[in-house]
Amino acid sequence: MTLRAIALNCTLKPGAAESSTELMLTQVLDELRSLDVETGPIVRVADLDIKPGVSSDEGDGDEWPALRRQILDADILVLGTPIWLGQPSSVVKRVLERMDAFLGEEDDRGRMISYDKVAIAAVVGNEDGAHHVSAELFQALNDVGFTIPAGGVTYWVGEAMHGIDYKDKEPTPEVTAATNKTAAANAAHLARLLQGDGYPAT
Amino acid sequence: MTLRAIALNCTLKPGAAESSTELMLTQVLDELRSLDVETGPIVRVADLDIKPGVSSDEGDGDEWPALRRQILDADILVLGTPIWLGQPSSVVKRVLERMDAFLGEEDDRGRMISYDKVAIAAVVGNEDGAHHVSAELFQALNDVGFTIPAGGVTYWVGEAMHGIDYKDKEPTPEVTAATNKTAAANAAHLARLLQGDGYPAT
Amino acid sequence: MTLRAIALNCTLKPGAAESSTELMLTQVLDELRSLDVETGPIVRVADLDIKPGVSSDEGDGDEWPALRRQILDADILVLGTPIWLGQPSSVVKRVLERMDAFLGEEDDRGRMISYDKVAIAAVVGNEDGAHHVSAELFQALNDVGFTIPAGGVTYWVGEAMHGIDYKDKEPTPEVTAATNKTAAANAAHLARLLQGDGYPAT
Amino acid sequence: MTLRAIALNCTLKPGAAESSTELMLTQVLDELRSLDVETGPIVRVADLDIKPGVSSDEGDGDEWPALRRQILDADILVLGTPIWLGQPSSVVKRVLERMDAFLGEEDDRGRMISYDKVAIAAVVGNEDGAHHVSAELFQALNDVGFTIPAGGVTYWVGEAMHGIDYKDKEPTPEVTAATNKTAAANAAHLARLLQGDGYPAT
Repeated sequence: MTLRAIALNCTLKPGAAESSTELMLTQVLDELRSLDVETGPIVRVADLDIKPGVSSDEGDGDEWPALRRQILDADILVLGTPIWLGQPSSVVKRVLERMDAFLGEEDDRGRMISYDKVAIAAVVGNEDGAHHVSAELFQALNDVGFTIPAGGVTYWVGEAMHGIDYKDKEPTPEVTAATNKTAAANAAHLARLLQGDGYPAT
Repeated sequence: MTLRAIALNCTLKPGAAESSTELMLTQVLDELRSLDVETGPIVRVADLDIKPGVSSDEGDGDEWPALRRQILDADILVLGTPIWLGQPSSVVKRVLERMDAFLGEEDDRGRMISYDKVAIAAVVGNEDGAHHVSAELFQALNDVGFTIPAGGVTYWVGEAMHGIDYKDKEPTPEVTAATNKTAAANAAHLARLLQGDGYPAT
Repeated sequence: MTLRAIALNCTLKPGAAESSTELMLTQVLDELRSLDVETGPIVRVADLDIKPGVSSDEGDGDEWPALRRQILDADILVLGTPIWLGQPSSVVKRVLERMDAFLGEEDDRGRMISYDKVAIAAVVGNEDGAHHVSAELFQALNDVGFTIPAGGVTYWVGEAMHGIDYKDKEPTPEVTAATNKTAAANAAHLARLLQGDGYPAT
Repeated sequence: MTLRAIALNCTLKPGAAESSTELMLTQVLDELRSLDVETGPIVRVADLDIKPGVSSDEGDGDEWPALRRQILDADILVLGTPIWLGQPSSVVKRVLERMDAFLGEEDDRGRMISYDKVAIAAVVGNEDGAHHVSAELFQALNDVGFTIPAGGVTYWVGEAMHGIDYKDKEPTPEVTAATNKTAAANAAHLARLLQGDGYPAT
């Protein structure tokens, strides 16, 4: 059976603006593809009109239902966010909020609709905040049914109060490249296990 | 000299939809008015088009510049947010992100433009998350120049995994009413001190 | 193959003092045993002299090396902590810090020594903080090699600023009992999968 | 009237072991002294036997009562902590837990015993975590009665997944030196205001 991954870029910058988060997601998707995981284009969430709310469809003009469908069709979610003020972006928060509705949605075995899916985080900032951002992402993703593999985050941040961007680092720092690889390998491994033998209904 | 407060309701619900956060903000503003602090109407942020970004004006259609002006014209910011998944709302995160620009903006004494302003938080959920939400709000607000008075948060949450709303609690729990009062009194006291004798330029 | 679980009670109370965390851990271990997972006695960490530090042995009198051995011999770690000031206890923080050494320790396949182990959290407070505590635990546990199953936390907290203890709730709230069961079932399922087919070396 | 500051070094290393946190605290105290704030020696908390618990005296051998007295005798608390796994140290968590007792202790005006005191944080790690650590410190300190001045944290962290220590940076990074100065100046200013005109009883 094939595995599918979806990557969401939750940068604040819409359109084709350069994005360090995009670069890191590209690198993680490359690793996933080398492990025979299918991937589509990275979704730039700021280009979509994701309405505020905690239901699966907030009505007229809401572009969440289509994105939700893509997430539920994938086995692996790669959630990419920049860091602002040491915290996850408002865009990734919006995505997590909308997934709150999973708590009330069941699959045909009576389990939360997102069960057996694996999530990893890709976090980029010019200084500080990656651990906290992954903490908030892991907790929220886990609340709404995702499994977090060992080494479930890859990240880069620069020295305190300096202003270097990941996209301007040449070449990619070796430790981050290695972490990209591990996160992808562990996500693919765990998603394969759960695809073959999912969680029991309780 | 008069003190002015501005209250932002960062609920996910636009329009006039009932909001527990609105109720708590109303209570806090009542306390502030009893201390001779001027207040305007509560701002429902979800009704505004606050663009993603970290500059003070993200261009065409951005309603942040007008809200930013109101915040800078006030002495006290009352930041109200619901809790989703144990975390601050995407709407309050957007507001904090936009205030990131304060880090590069100086007043005529060379200090961050938001200096001498006091911020308090009003946090409401049906279960769990108030301390963490106040932690994130305090840190982000402090980063962008606000001062946090003793007892700088008022909150209500219900028992774990139950679904009661603050707006449906009758009467208001006494401990929360007392905390509203203390937060307001401390904010007004500290704002008055800083209005009379602001931080030095360094 | 048999699965083994170890439960750590990170209450601040040493000795046999009554502990809400102990009660919840007992309930989770009961669930695990019903799934044929072997368990030993709950470890009351405050009874041990776990020295401050980030190495695997901080020398004379340090009781971490023996506890570390027990953790590494188990397939499932159930990490139980009370909430104080909305945050994890200093005792559980000490345990996490000592596991920091795992980052530099490899098994015979060159992977982090803790790989293929599953961790879940049991969090108890008289009000507020469970989501944040699980966020910090998930992130730290994941950093040091553990995998977090879907629904990887069970918790109970009471209404804001009230002082009820979990150990005095009779009977156990149904939602928490159900969450205990799910956390245990998911942990056992995932630990079994990883026991049969562990993460690749990268 | 004179102002007094107390600085706590919450490193995991007891004795005279070199500590980056100690270096930063020394720098902050130098700034405070240049503003006519009295300071004593930095307290290395890992050298004291601070028992687990949430009362003001946990009995035989507990060295918290004496440290508590020093904290209450000061106008400014400078709380210094290293970062491990992106989080505050277990030692600083123990200090915060013990201050939980302030919630039930009143001064002669019926206010929380710690009122009118200002707290700032000094946070040091070799990579990532400073914003989150300050968030947790601010929230816990504020819960137990402290006021947080604008710019209430100074910090240094290095690039992601590198291992440089602050104590080995020569010279001190200019941005951190400037932040030390601002945090000290704002703390002294606010403590002076509150010494002259404290919060009202509510």
